Amino acid sequence: MNTGELVELAQQLRVDSVRASAAAGSGHPTSSMSAADLMAVLFAHHFRYDFDRPAHPANDRFVLSKGHASPLMYAVFKAAGALDDEELLTFRTLGSRLEGHPTPRRLPWVETATGSLGQGLPVGVGIALAGQRLDRSGYRVWVLCGDSELAEGSIWEAAEQAGAEHLDNITAIIDVNRLGQRGETRHGHDLDAYARRFQAFGWHTVEVDGHDVDAIDRAYGEAASTKGQPTAVIARTLKGKGVEDVQDREGLHGKPLKNADDAIEELGGVRDLRLRVQEPPAARILHAVRAGHVELPRWDKGEEVATRDAYGHALTALGTGRGDVVALDGEVGDSTRTEFFAKEHPERYFECYIAEQQMVAAAVGLAARGWVPYAGTFAAFLTRAYDFVRMASISGVGINLVGSHAGIAIGQDGPSQMGLEDLAMMRAVHGSTVLYPCDANQTAHLVAAMADLDGIRYLRTGRGESPVIYGPEEEFPIGGSKVLRSSADDRMTIVAAGVTVPEALKAADALDQEGIRVRVIDLYSVKPVDRDTLRRAAEETGCLLTVEDHHEEGGLGDAVLDAFTDGRPVPRLVRLAVRSMPGSASPEEQLHAAGIDAESVAAAARLLVEQAIVP
Amino acid sequence: MNTGELVELAQQLRVDSVRASAAAGSGHPTSSMSAADLMAVLFAHHFRYDFDRPAHPANDRFVLSKGHASPLMYAVFKAAGALDDEELLTFRTLGSRLEGHPTPRRLPWVETATGSLGQGLPVGVGIALAGQRLDRSGYRVWVLCGDSELAEGSIWEAAEQAGAEHLDNITAIIDVNRLGQRGETRHGHDLDAYARRFQAFGWHTVEVDGHDVDAIDRAYGEAASTKGQPTAVIARTLKGKGVEDVQDREGLHGKPLKNADDAIEELGGVRDLRLRVQEPPAARILHAVRAGHVELPRWDKGEEVATRDAYGHALTALGTGRGDVVALDGEVGDSTRTEFFAKEHPERYFECYIAEQQMVAAAVGLAARGWVPYAGTFAAFLTRAYDFVRMASISGVGINLVGSHAGIAIGQDGPSQMGLEDLAMMRAVHGSTVLYPCDANQTAHLVAAMADLDGIRYLRTGRGESPVIYGPEEEFPIGGSKVLRSSADDRMTIVAAGVTVPEALKAADALDQEGIRVRVIDLYSVKPVDRDTLRRAAEETGCLLTVEDHHEEGGLGDAVLDAFTDGRPVPRLVRLAVRSMPGSASPEEQLHAAGIDAESVAAAARLLVEQAIVP
Repeated sequence: MNTGELVELAQQLRVDSVRASAAAGSGHPTSSMSAADLMAVLFAHHFRYDFDRPAHPANDRFVLSKGHASPLMYAVFKAAGALDDEELLTFRTLGSRLEGHPTPRRLPWVETATGSLGQGLPVGVGIALAGQRLDRSGYRVWVLCGDSELAEGSIWEAAEQAGAEHLDNITAIIDVNRLGQRGETRHGHDLDAYARRFQAFGWHTVEVDGHDVDAIDRAYGEAASTKGQPTAVIARTLKGKGVEDVQDREGLHGKPLKNADDAIEELGGVRDLRLRVQEPPAARILHAVRAGHVELPRWDKGEEVATRDAYGHALTALGTGRGDVVALDGEVGDSTRTEFFAKEHPERYFECYIAEQQMVAAAVGLAARGWVPYAGTFAAFLTRAYDFVRMASISGVGINLVGSHAGIAIGQDGPSQMGLEDLAMMRAVHGSTVLYPCDANQTAHLVAAMADLDGIRYLRTGRGESPVIYGPEEEFPIGGSKVLRSSADDRMTIVAAGVTVPEALKAADALDQEGIRVRVIDLYSVKPVDRDTLRRAAEETGCLLTVEDHHEEGGLGDAVLDAFTDGRPVPRLVRLAVRSMPGSASPEEQLHAAGIDAESVAAAARLLVEQAIVP
Repeated sequence: MNTGELVELAQQLRVDSVRASAAAGSGHPTSSMSAADLMAVLFAHHFRYDFDRPAHPANDRFVLSKGHASPLMYAVFKAAGALDDEELLTFRTLGSRLEGHPTPRRLPWVETATGSLGQGLPVGVGIALAGQRLDRSGYRVWVLCGDSELAEGSIWEAAEQAGAEHLDNITAIIDVNRLGQRGETRHGHDLDAYARRFQAFGWHTVEVDGHDVDAIDRAYGEAASTKGQPTAVIARTLKGKGVEDVQDREGLHGKPLKNADDAIEELGGVRDLRLRVQEPPAARILHAVRAGHVELPRWDKGEEVATRDAYGHALTALGTGRGDVVALDGEVGDSTRTEFFAKEHPERYFECYIAEQQMVAAAVGLAARGWVPYAGTFAAFLTRAYDFVRMASISGVGINLVGSHAGIAIGQDGPSQMGLEDLAMMRAVHGSTVLYPCDANQTAHLVAAMADLDGIRYLRTGRGESPVIYGPEEEFPIGGSKVLRSSADDRMTIVAAGVTVPEALKAADALDQEGIRVRVIDLYSVKPVDRDTLRRAAEETGCLLTVEDHHEEGGLGDAVLDAFTDGRPVPRLVRLAVRSMPGSASPEEQLHAAGIDAESVAAAARLLVEQAIVP
């Protein structure tokens, strides 16, 4: 396209953004209008993509980090012939594929869900890492960022990783329209302020007038030809560009234009230009996935093994059997045991340093490109990335998250290092799976099983050694549980998981000596929960005592309730959980102080039986 | 102190770090040893503090951002006479004040809990903001950071705020010991790499040999005399400095020294030097807190008011009546209505731009200095700051968090903007209070009541207008609820909160027309929960139907269970919640699609009654 055609195309994108938002009665047309020239030039001259084959391995990848500018993205898709005008005008209505913020659940040309600012660039960096180190089919990643979102620390985690990894296959396009939601941004139109920051993190930068299509064209060319560094194209733009009533004015964020018809006229009217996006080059997938046999590690009953160790060994074995498995670390791989994988499969290992948001975002990016990522850090520090986990679930992408050092059982390090909210946090994520193994063989089986599930899968591992209680051939279906003690005379049921399983068994054995028979369930699948087994236990024993190394809200105790919320009779319930703020102490002292060790479990059971609260 | 004395003091700090860790059998001596000279010079020559009066308004403030170097901090406290040697050696044992990572819950000289990396500097910036804009008693804030933690995006959110706000009262001391937990950091000993980054964010930087006490002394002097900019003192150090066996070696993070006695000898043996920390200058608190009368806004029954609007007005009124209330915004103040406060009380308003971690950290810092912060953004985006909320609860600090745009009821914007995990997330925090008002007067009362609670207090507000159902004189105790419909013939109880309260009332009225009487409880206090009222409803009606605009895990439905986990009979339970992934649609369409509108509530109730599941 020549200059005039590019200008016309950009005007069409503006007009369609205004039209879609007007039809919806909501949306962000002014945020779309600022970036229309940037998008027109990108898609007309630089972006290589086959809209009929979104899975094409050599397709470039576009991420709309400023997700609220969705009308602009949809207007591009329409110009490219992927959507028709009728669908464009369904924007934001019930059942439409064109959501307020784009998601790959609905549209195949969207790489990742955005709308929580500061996440598109981090995920884009993950895709670029896949391109650089694994896919090698030559694609480029282009990310359109807003200026406001550069205040998010996650942007600088991404900038750091991209700079340090010399990702010259990613370009960040910064739409510096000066205005955030509620007024001017910190740096207004000071492009240098942003350039200095990106340069400090090792990026090449190009400053450009974001409404000069020829200058934009040259800037993208410079980005694509820059070697050894990512490039940020920092563009001075005007919010609402092209319509005098709204251009560069405050107070108009996220509002359709009041006089849409006049605005469309001012923009030169409705057009129907067709954008011919360049085809990607022929490419074959170089990472032919080895779907070989997975030989899981095995442990003998009675050995003492930490579940984090079992995780490290199982992940390594999984990586040997499956060429699509990759691992990410937040600079604690020696603790989480992800380092076992790193030693065996360095080519599929990604060190993300202490940047948990970027670690999860990179996992999302890798998963978007078909890889099966396992990202691990301390369970406590996954709280750092909760918004990324939430957004990943909206994307519908499949990632494996592993939180080690769960609970007070870590001992001396104290509460800052203890995952005590992780079960609640992960259970509340839509469509998630939450697993909490108690021994090494169980851990290994769950690590392998989680690879092929949908959505967010979370595995919780422990720091200390625990006894191997299952043989290596035992199976552990997702949504299942194990009944470890059972008799016709059970007077109650203890439900445990992870570190509290051995405690529950010890308690049951002690009670048995006193003539009190209790059932013990290992609820390793916290979500989904084994409803049948819990219901049977409720019917047969009348009372459930849950015991968990987690705060009392949202964890195992609440998970058990999932079996009883359809109006059926509910068993009597007692919960043992971490109720006070721990300090430093040995693991044994911690379990005792919190009242979740064998002695406490037995005492609670005795009290319930003696007080005849249970039959 | 002269050079020789400073060197000796630093050696004493090393020796005591080694001794404390050896006694504990765990801890981080090598991470302490790298920074011993930096701390010796700081506390001997620059830091002004009265250990007998930690609340002194002119005290400087020290934050150990690399919280794992706690032995070093405790060694300083000992040298200053605040701890004795016996207590030093209780490090990391049950009941000791000297936890693995320091917390202000236990020690009065600790400003904020650290141990989750990348949080000390952000909180320090909050304290510095208080000093610059509110306290004005001339104190300086000194933050010791590790080099590894500079990978956290939160560090750059803090750097951005400090730079942009020209906080020349804060100094970040960067202990660049080259080694992270599992190996070398990204930048090793490249001090310039860090300097470039800080400079780009508007900081003055000084690079220094971190083992040259005179150079350190000059660097701190330069920091203290630099005007209009924060300063980063970037120090080249060696991990494990002073003991050849461990100095600058990998694989020794977080491990006591194997041969502690030899190491102590190599360091010159045990010393008992006394550190005389300079007294702060005389100061009076300039922010005399006006504890005046708070005149809350009032609305008439039947008005339609969004709870976010009520929040904005109530917060403004609270700020008028109380001079200690401050407000923080994540660049969405026009949406959360924090902007109402900004207009009335600009001197106590802190714009944090789109940096939710920094917003919460700044709130923690302000609270540490005695202010009562209210920090608000969309409920969905508070997930970004979960680790900061978790750590704030470990600090034991009191902060108010307000999440607007809760749930699917926001409508067209789609799932990225919908808070659907916030109740679960906030309930799981130790000692938290979780409030979810349904009308304007209730909101106003809760906004005022939460100010004086302990710990983390969370208020959830809605986007759309909702009917005022309570008069302005009604009272809403924390831990209470309101029974809105009740009769002797109630066949079940509907438990609702927030946006589902009006839906529950409509459903109850429709059922009443059909001759089915149901109780309706407004459970505005989600944590703590009103056990008595729920238990009475269970006894009298036999079945509870909960209905909430939140995912089904960890929210209202689970909260209700808190009333029934002591072994007592549990009522039959049915939960209505958001179970599928929403898209864009109108608020009414969303509520209907999720099955939490009046029609769905009534239908569920009818089904339960007809199927005789309820009596």
